[in-house]
Amino acid sequence: MLQLIGFDGDDTLWHSEGYYRAASEAFAAIMGRYVDLGDQHVHDSMLATEQRNLKLFGYGAKGMALSMVETAIAVSDGRITATDIHRLVELGKTVLQHPVELLPGIRAAVEAVAQRYEVVLITKGDLFHQEKKVAESGLADLFRRIEIVSEKNAATYQRVLGEFALQPAQFAMVGNSLRSDILPVLDAGGAAVHIPYATTWVHERVAEDAMAGRTFATLENIRELPAWLARTATASRV
Amino acid sequence: MLQLIGFDGDDTLWHSEGYYRAASEAFAAIMGRYVDLGDQHVHDSMLATEQRNLKLFGYGAKGMALSMVETAIAVSDGRITATDIHRLVELGKTVLQHPVELLPGIRAAVEAVAQRYEVVLITKGDLFHQEKKVAESGLADLFRRIEIVSEKNAATYQRVLGEFALQPAQFAMVGNSLRSDILPVLDAGGAAVHIPYATTWVHERVAEDAMAGRTFATLENIRELPAWLARTATASRV
Repeated sequence: MLQLIGFDGDDTLWHSEGYYRAASEAFAAIMGRYVDLGDQHVHDSMLATEQRNLKLFGYGAKGMALSMVETAIAVSDGRITATDIHRLVELGKTVLQHPVELLPGIRAAVEAVAQRYEVVLITKGDLFHQEKKVAESGLADLFRRIEIVSEKNAATYQRVLGEFALQPAQFAMVGNSLRSDILPVLDAGGAAVHIPYATTWVHERVAEDAMAGRTFATLENIRELPAWLARTATASRV
Repeated sequence: MLQLIGFDGDDTLWHSEGYYRAASEAFAAIMGRYVDLGDQHVHDSMLATEQRNLKLFGYGAKGMALSMVETAIAVSDGRITATDIHRLVELGKTVLQHPVELLPGIRAAVEAVAQRYEVVLITKGDLFHQEKKVAESGLADLFRRIEIVSEKNAATYQRVLGEFALQPAQFAMVGNSLRSDILPVLDAGGAAVHIPYATTWVHERVAEDAMAGRTFATLENIRELPAWLARTATASRV
């Protein structure tokens, strides 16, 4: 029986990807002063820089800002001005300062779940920024524990389960990312509820066939979650 | 009586400040191409930028790199070249990649303490970088728990004590920073053992009179810690 429900933060409880995407678009606009944006070069170069730097920087807006600076210098062959580089640093700060806007129905849904289960927030990324977002979300009081992790893999979820002294079958994770919230939880033996967000960061995407043969729920909206949990509980009692 | 001993990481278990300081010196050398380093302007400007950005970036090398870029652009009046800015980003990466070198006697001292007490690592800074350092230190297996926190204040230590269900009198913290490892632990009602490191980051320094009237131990070397704990235990049994 389910005892612990985990919730992802970014793009599950509150909007996030849109702010990163807006910064990417502003970055492309600045680069348009130096290179022809018709080709995919700026975009591809940024993706490659980010991918390479993820191993060193981890996730988050500070790493993104440093990768933008690096990409801009490379793509412009060193012609980018200091003023424009300063704009890139400011773009990173904008992402760190964005307001925390809850998705519709979040507080009511988490409260309803918290009445019947223990709930934990498991969010990935920069410690400082995630703590700020959790505080501003006004949801911290609902969670038994807040886990800010640098990567979400099966070992991460196993560690959290160990801290609650629970078996995988007692845990379900709710999130928008197939790669971070669904696949590793299934690998760890837990249940998973996918609530897709409008957009997915390219580094969070998985190949279409990665989900073949895997069993998990997909809900359109978090408002459906309490009813889904109630149905699941009833079904497993039969 | 003491049950849980907390250890700080940077400059208590392994060297850290030296790498940041080397990056600062390399930064000053690069800035010397643009401004007269005779005055304190570059140094003061970097301190002010860092102080302002701490609220947004938190601690760590990525924030330092972004602050160096920002300072360099301001101090050079935008004359700094893209090539030199790229060098500043690389300085940040150098700090993130430095080898983890334990201070002398660390493993033996922590092992000796772990035989008699529960031990926990409480380290402040960037989640991703601290996890990498903990992994490379080879010490992770000695600690019951590893807490990577964004700030070390009395509330931080109270939270950790709560997770272990302990009273403040059952906890002692060992570390090099009066501001982060000693003062807030005393404020939370615990005991504290100060082991000074050769150099202290300016943002970690405290005013000399801040320690007036406070009671804590100072050891020259972590090798003295097991004997100090044994003496303390004997004294408190009397």
